[in-house]
Amino acid sequence: MSVAIVGGGPGDPGLVTVRALELVRGCEILVYDRLVAPALVAKAMGAARISRDGLTQEEVNELLVHHGRRGRRVVRLKGGDPFIFGRGFEEVEALAAAGIDYEVVPGRSTFTAVPGLAGIPLTTRGVAAQLTILTGTSGDASDLDYDHLAATPGTLVIFMGLKRPEHLADNLILAGRPVDEPAAVVSRLSLPGSETRVGTLGTIAAVARGLKTPSLVIVGDVVASTEHLRTAVDVATRRAA
Amino acid sequence: MSVAIVGGGPGDPGLVTVRALELVRGCEILVYDRLVAPALVAKAMGAARISRDGLTQEEVNELLVHHGRRGRRVVRLKGGDPFIFGRGFEEVEALAAAGIDYEVVPGRSTFTAVPGLAGIPLTTRGVAAQLTILTGTSGDASDLDYDHLAATPGTLVIFMGLKRPEHLADNLILAGRPVDEPAAVVSRLSLPGSETRVGTLGTIAAVARGLKTPSLVIVGDVVASTEHLRTAVDVATRRAA
Repeated sequence: MSVAIVGGGPGDPGLVTVRALELVRGCEILVYDRLVAPALVAKAMGAARISRDGLTQEEVNELLVHHGRRGRRVVRLKGGDPFIFGRGFEEVEALAAAGIDYEVVPGRSTFTAVPGLAGIPLTTRGVAAQLTILTGTSGDASDLDYDHLAATPGTLVIFMGLKRPEHLADNLILAGRPVDEPAAVVSRLSLPGSETRVGTLGTIAAVARGLKTPSLVIVGDVVASTEHLRTAVDVATRRAA
Repeated sequence: MSVAIVGGGPGDPGLVTVRALELVRGCEILVYDRLVAPALVAKAMGAARISRDGLTQEEVNELLVHHGRRGRRVVRLKGGDPFIFGRGFEEVEALAAAGIDYEVVPGRSTFTAVPGLAGIPLTTRGVAAQLTILTGTSGDASDLDYDHLAATPGTLVIFMGLKRPEHLADNLILAGRPVDEPAAVVSRLSLPGSETRVGTLGTIAAVARGLKTPSLVIVGDVVASTEHLRTAVDVATRRAA
């Protein structure tokens, strides 16, 4: 297996899988994303380490094909999961088109660490039985279908990228979601300086002001039901610090 | 930290986190779910290992509180993630109510391993920008809101538990989803004997006949777009076997 497309999880090296760690440790060429923790990148001892920063997706594909063709042990280390709001499939297609063997190793998509690290369960018996995850390709979430989202039951998780949640919250309220519906913003989940702030759709933009990117927005009753869990996570985080 | 609520992931011990493995190895009391891999349970060397099978949720809570109160190192090892279609929050509430310290360790929710292990990405640029995960509490998915699901964009993932997908597929078609929309059933993901079968909403019930439980149903264009990835996963699986 010459090229491995590996999910690095939310960022904390403790959340990477055993198989991912094994591949990173043993690779000759590591191509990694900006949001992957430096401590994880450092496990690729003796490998040439190439940051993906500043490269286009096409250039990344070419890099993988180039080294894969020479039979090097290549790891493409991505944040989160390569195939859940990652772009791993484009890399897989490029490798397949070039006839190069590869392995895919799932990582934890960042939103899946919300319960354990931000203290907000994404579903809870009797509170939310559906989970919807989405992203706005426009950066400010202006391209989402708010009428449909207004009627979507359960919990919403929105990858916000670089922008603040005003636009998202205002549009959800305009489309009919209650202004007092619980909402949270989680900044830099699992990374140093991570912070979770809780409010309602009406207050969340003000509450989240000043938080660092990247961030996730969580909307739904699970946010309000979980003070116990948030407290426990706070205690665990302080102990680990 | 006396009680840890730990996600064991989809089943394959290679998909567990480093922190989870550390806690399982060091615990004195392990309370584990039926779907957790025996190889992972076996890592709790020297611990009293208690299967959750046959216990009510209340009895599990009592067990955790009992041993937690005595200051034992207790691990509650669950399939998937404790707070995404798990019932970890009920255990956290019981521990909080009893004033017992605990730690929460996220696991991979089973659906997140679909791309890497079944070869179906859950989102793909230009194909699906939203992911909806749900479960039918009735077992045959008769209680889902099919009118809303018919209009939900992107990819649907349904935890099916023990039943076959006829009811689900028929109702989605009746509510207006195309009969030729791509669909897949993944049986026993990451466990021995896992199998993925692909068809359409119209054919999936027949295609999936005879598959073992538990299973996941995936509906959406991502299923059809991904022959490369499925092939790669097949190859990787054969090599690992």
